[in-house]
Amino acid sequence: MSELRRLVDANREYVDDHLGIADAEPRRHLAVVTCMDARIDVFAALGLELGDAHVIRNAGGRVTDDVLRSLALSSHALGVDSVVVMQHTRCGLAGVSNAELEEVTGSGIDFFCIDDHVETLRTDLQKIRDTPYLSVLSEVAGFVHDIDPGHITEIVEA
Amino acid sequence: MSELRRLVDANREYVDDHLGIADAEPRRHLAVVTCMDARIDVFAALGLELGDAHVIRNAGGRVTDDVLRSLALSSHALGVDSVVVMQHTRCGLAGVSNAELEEVTGSGIDFFCIDDHVETLRTDLQKIRDTPYLSVLSEVAGFVHDIDPGHITEIVEA
Repeated sequence: MSELRRLVDANREYVDDHLGIADAEPRRHLAVVTCMDARIDVFAALGLELGDAHVIRNAGGRVTDDVLRSLALSSHALGVDSVVVMQHTRCGLAGVSNAELEEVTGSGIDFFCIDDHVETLRTDLQKIRDTPYLSVLSEVAGFVHDIDPGHITEIVEA
Repeated sequence: MSELRRLVDANREYVDDHLGIADAEPRRHLAVVTCMDARIDVFAALGLELGDAHVIRNAGGRVTDDVLRSLALSSHALGVDSVVVMQHTRCGLAGVSNAELEEVTGSGIDFFCIDDHVETLRTDLQKIRDTPYLSVLSEVAGFVHDIDPGHITEIVEA
């Protein structure tokens, strides 16, 4: 339990300075879907503060069925009306295939690999737009985040 | 595009101070699975710095198939060997049913509701342990995060 014990010890030192956030509704009525990548500083990169947005993250920042589930709650139960899907350069899912990842991981699942960032974002945004229970969303867009200078280099509108 | 335009404008001001993180492998070989809730400061609450960990987030911080997909990449491709699943008090999925959420959202999907936090964590950790391609993980644990004082109140080991 060494690494996890370290987390618990750090938590003991945690002085919560966001006690003011009683409301579960994101202040900016926003959900950000992005990659789990350890190098992405979601809040700094997008000028967000704690309490502003739902943050949904998985391998690639792909719009999977689980992301649709999360967005159903964001939009209908918690006042979210804007969604941005932010994928990034040098992603572990870019330029690889399911067959290659099966060899690496021993799992034959669909990994949601990314061939072309803009094309993938178009597909993912369309998936949101094609989901009847998400028709309440007003703004849906995709960003490509260049992980090295930290900038948004492409904007895809849905 | 007002809210999304505001994100892009904020990004223009973003001065990337993590250019030193060339390596995609999380420094602490750790993945954190937690809820999308806007009030959770994952890094502060667990004493993490940018680059330390994969951060996987969805509604509830539940171990869905999409989380297993992400963890397959974390563990086999990116050196992760510890996983913590952190669920929290006052979660929108706690104490509600699929039938109630169907009424709210108009969707009949499984929302992965949470009846009891410790029981749910046990179920979710077991799902990780029962996934053959995740047998490479050495540490797997669950935390209940009390969102008000910000502390970890329960630790569930797998």
